[in-house]
Amino acid sequence: MDIALLGGTGDIGEGLALRWAHDTDHGVVVGSRDAERARAAADEYEKRLADHGVTAAVDSGANPDAAARADLVVCAVPAYHLTDTIESVADGLDEGDVLVSPAVGMKGDEDGLHYNRPSAGSVLALAAGAAPDRVSVVGAFHNLAAGRLADLDVDLGVDTPVVGDDEAAVETVVGVAEDIGGLRALPAGPAANAPEVESLTPLLINLARYNDDMHDVGIRFE
Amino acid sequence: MDIALLGGTGDIGEGLALRWAHDTDHGVVVGSRDAERARAAADEYEKRLADHGVTAAVDSGANPDAAARADLVVCAVPAYHLTDTIESVADGLDEGDVLVSPAVGMKGDEDGLHYNRPSAGSVLALAAGAAPDRVSVVGAFHNLAAGRLADLDVDLGVDTPVVGDDEAAVETVVGVAEDIGGLRALPAGPAANAPEVESLTPLLINLARYNDDMHDVGIRFE
Repeated sequence: MDIALLGGTGDIGEGLALRWAHDTDHGVVVGSRDAERARAAADEYEKRLADHGVTAAVDSGANPDAAARADLVVCAVPAYHLTDTIESVADGLDEGDVLVSPAVGMKGDEDGLHYNRPSAGSVLALAAGAAPDRVSVVGAFHNLAAGRLADLDVDLGVDTPVVGDDEAAVETVVGVAEDIGGLRALPAGPAANAPEVESLTPLLINLARYNDDMHDVGIRFE
Repeated sequence: MDIALLGGTGDIGEGLALRWAHDTDHGVVVGSRDAERARAAADEYEKRLADHGVTAAVDSGANPDAAARADLVVCAVPAYHLTDTIESVADGLDEGDVLVSPAVGMKGDEDGLHYNRPSAGSVLALAAGAAPDRVSVVGAFHNLAAGRLADLDVDLGVDTPVVGDDEAAVETVVGVAEDIGGLRALPAGPAANAPEVESLTPLLINLARYNDDMHDVGIRFE
């Protein structure tokens, strides 16, 4: 499967690109608003993969090009860029393509970070509103610590809940996620269940702040 | 320390009473609106403890009596009874007593359960609003599966985040929680961080619904 990472130069995009390129045969396309920045990131990822003994071509392109070439498109951009980014790539999305949102809206105060639930109901609902009807939208990867994901020397050993209204698309994302070694993907129901999943991210950041040795903490459901 | 479990005849109260009586030397007082029901539950807990080789006296009383006798008061009642219950026991709470809320407000639809955030900001904020100022209010135990907690044959092996504005009270609750074997308690910051903690409960219930073998699922941050 060809996987595009929009915002693939950012930290969560970096980690997913490296893991898929390292652990699987999926084609990986790094997207960015700027095609040259995308290429520079892809070059760097190829070098890091080579350092880990993996020869893999990491493709690249401007976000719309990257999306047009992929079957599964991960919008690894901040929540406030999510709808813009989806609209910018919409024309290149085909019937049956799956769009994945790991984005979480948060606001901070002196105590910590808090889930900033959009009036649409969830960030996933925002994504679904911006995407063409022919595309299925799935929420996943919200709770993965970027540093841990991007460090190929670290065994992941974490879970990620997956939500979406299209069961087949959820199954596709669960499968592609679990192709990454040490990552378990757990269906958490339809898109209406997204807020509880998106709320995990600020919780993990707060736990990392108030506990020693919890930098890049992950989650296991057991 | 003397610990009262208001609503100690309910499922989460049952589990905490059994674990504290089994694993620790803390005094356990089962409270209920009806003193006779509290006594009947305490008798049953004593029998189950004896079956596990532990001779422990489990005390009991009407909720106000139970609260008056304890230093740490766990309000193991549904969210919609929380403020009533706290108001009913307020006169017996002393300066420095710690009130613990494991309650979560949820609403359900065909897709799953959802966190029903009170306009006060969190269920913990509701509890704080109902409690006398001389008492510290702490949120904990929201994410413990009652069946697993109450089954003394099962090793817990789970975490529970703890939130509250009074750091000393949070530390007390962390300590008393960790006196239970296999339970790790993790500070998650001030009370403002409660919504993300309270949101874990519907997420766990949704995961149990959409995945096989996840009945009574717990959480580990690692």
